[in-house]
Amino acid sequence: MHSGPVIALDAMGGDHGPQEAVRGAVRAVREHGLRVVMVGRRPELVRLLAEEDAAGAIPIVHAEDALAMHEGALASWRRPRSSVAVACKLIRQGEASALVSAGSTGGVVATSTVRLRTQQGIMRPALAVSLPTRPGPTVLLDAGANADAKPEMLVQFAHLGAAYARSAFGVENPRVAMLTIGAEPGKGNRLARKTAELLTAAAAQAPQAQRLDFRGNVEGHDLLAGEVDVVVTDGFTGNVALKSVEGAVRFTMDAVAEAMTSSTAAKAGSLLQRKALRELRGRLDSDTYGGAVLLGLNGSVVISHGASRGPAVERACRLAHDLTAGGIGEEVRSRVQSGARSARRQRLGPGGEEQPAG
Amino acid sequence: MHSGPVIALDAMGGDHGPQEAVRGAVRAVREHGLRVVMVGRRPELVRLLAEEDAAGAIPIVHAEDALAMHEGALASWRRPRSSVAVACKLIRQGEASALVSAGSTGGVVATSTVRLRTQQGIMRPALAVSLPTRPGPTVLLDAGANADAKPEMLVQFAHLGAAYARSAFGVENPRVAMLTIGAEPGKGNRLARKTAELLTAAAAQAPQAQRLDFRGNVEGHDLLAGEVDVVVTDGFTGNVALKSVEGAVRFTMDAVAEAMTSSTAAKAGSLLQRKALRELRGRLDSDTYGGAVLLGLNGSVVISHGASRGPAVERACRLAHDLTAGGIGEEVRSRVQSGARSARRQRLGPGGEEQPAG
Repeated sequence: MHSGPVIALDAMGGDHGPQEAVRGAVRAVREHGLRVVMVGRRPELVRLLAEEDAAGAIPIVHAEDALAMHEGALASWRRPRSSVAVACKLIRQGEASALVSAGSTGGVVATSTVRLRTQQGIMRPALAVSLPTRPGPTVLLDAGANADAKPEMLVQFAHLGAAYARSAFGVENPRVAMLTIGAEPGKGNRLARKTAELLTAAAAQAPQAQRLDFRGNVEGHDLLAGEVDVVVTDGFTGNVALKSVEGAVRFTMDAVAEAMTSSTAAKAGSLLQRKALRELRGRLDSDTYGGAVLLGLNGSVVISHGASRGPAVERACRLAHDLTAGGIGEEVRSRVQSGARSARRQRLGPGGEEQPAG
Repeated sequence: MHSGPVIALDAMGGDHGPQEAVRGAVRAVREHGLRVVMVGRRPELVRLLAEEDAAGAIPIVHAEDALAMHEGALASWRRPRSSVAVACKLIRQGEASALVSAGSTGGVVATSTVRLRTQQGIMRPALAVSLPTRPGPTVLLDAGANADAKPEMLVQFAHLGAAYARSAFGVENPRVAMLTIGAEPGKGNRLARKTAELLTAAAAQAPQAQRLDFRGNVEGHDLLAGEVDVVVTDGFTGNVALKSVEGAVRFTMDAVAEAMTSSTAAKAGSLLQRKALRELRGRLDSDTYGGAVLLGLNGSVVISHGASRGPAVERACRLAHDLTAGGIGEEVRSRVQSGARSARRQRLGPGGEEQPAG
């Protein structure tokens, strides 16, 4: 009955342990018909499945070890029997196509980068998040996988982000911008200035089908404007920007809640609005879009928030399904090959002969 | 009657022209007893002062030229007769101690850096902003003056920020943190890692009086937590973080306003809360603390928002007064000298002789 890509769910990651992972998996399977295999301690998972009235409903692959939430990235990827490592093995063996984990971002990034390896031609994987913009989400990447990046990596990130927007959200020609300071061309630090040059060149040279629709620079206050589909930056800047946005949204919502109960009149008003504001908080919640995605590896990797409950795990599974079923792997492959071809064409003369240097 | 430092107000900067500058100056003088001199086109300023019933109340220094709001930084600082340049001249001649302008940040930064020059021993000036945290404001710097910075500059920025928190807000021993990704030591990009090392060393070595109270790393979501007095970063990261925060606060307030009028019940409630939310918006408004301050030059420079109206200009004048009267120049001087002394002590042996290298 169920078809489509198989999702390997790390059932041991996250602050709330396997119970929430099992709940999310059951919902993903029953309500959305996804194919999920759970990876973790079998006896525990069997018991939890039974508690959810779902004994035998979801296959389990045993993994005796698990990454700790606050374990350093370097320590974690050396553990071959962790649930994340075993899930990666399933993907490498072709038994699954995507990994979902609520484990620590550092641990999952390190483990899956080492064990899944980057797609051919990709220098580094990038962590992408969807910001809750309207009318559609804006993909921000790199949100923290590469603290020190090179301009050439950022050009690849632009393609990775475009592939994400297309596969997960169905955006035909994603509009891509670069995060910097000052909207005019030539603004920013050395990395941003060089990257903007390369992106402009890539937009001009790629063949029509894989063309980057590079819209130029955006600034921090444009992140939530919803005017582009992809914003590209290095992992240091992207992580600072993402967390600044998250912190400011939370700060403002808390300040609103406080203001609304600061007087009797305000308090009476807030009763009438509780529902509207609860819905808004849900929309701005960073879990809403299913979590961060590590792009550019041989297999989709979705990292949901450590505090994820069942519904967040379910959304992460749906995102992993959408990316894989949407063909993100092939999309990245064709974009990277086309990028390599056009870079080569640049070096060749009109007749196809290699031009002498200088 | 009036005493204290003289503030040279660029009356020509800002989106709303000299009228708002004149209004702000009149309030600063009448309500707070500040000493202000206005720099700009004399006939226009004379007329506007008369309209405010303040003919002759504020001295005017004529400047025939003005920087355009969207003029590039490089173009602007070459204009010796601009109101900003003339205001800087007043400071260099000892006739004023501080500059206030609502002109373009790039233009004011470039012009004042060239014309006031950095204080002795300071490598680069840094742009500082106060975030509306509680219980006290948090100073974020560099917010955009130096897109490419070196670790040694960031250590100086830490001292500049501490001097600001002490002079303007009376914080006796400002707590300083560095903005990076990941709270543990050793996290971040190359610049952040090296800077954290230097800040740790500076905190250990400086003499008691000028010691940096370095509290380690903070992340983007800590910016509004109010747990430290100063957050130091490079101008690229700081500008992205600041604008991300500003954009997210605005986005959230707009979303709240929309949610609160989304149903009849919510709309009825919002009438009761309008005042509380208006006050909140005022508190979160980036103008509230008087504007960005360029630190490290021979003279305080306060750059208020281009959209500043009279009250914002008035607050900028008060901030310039507080900084100057609070002795920020001397505070920076003693911190930099003490930093140089302790760096020298490091190179010397216990007996005072220079240690052989290696």
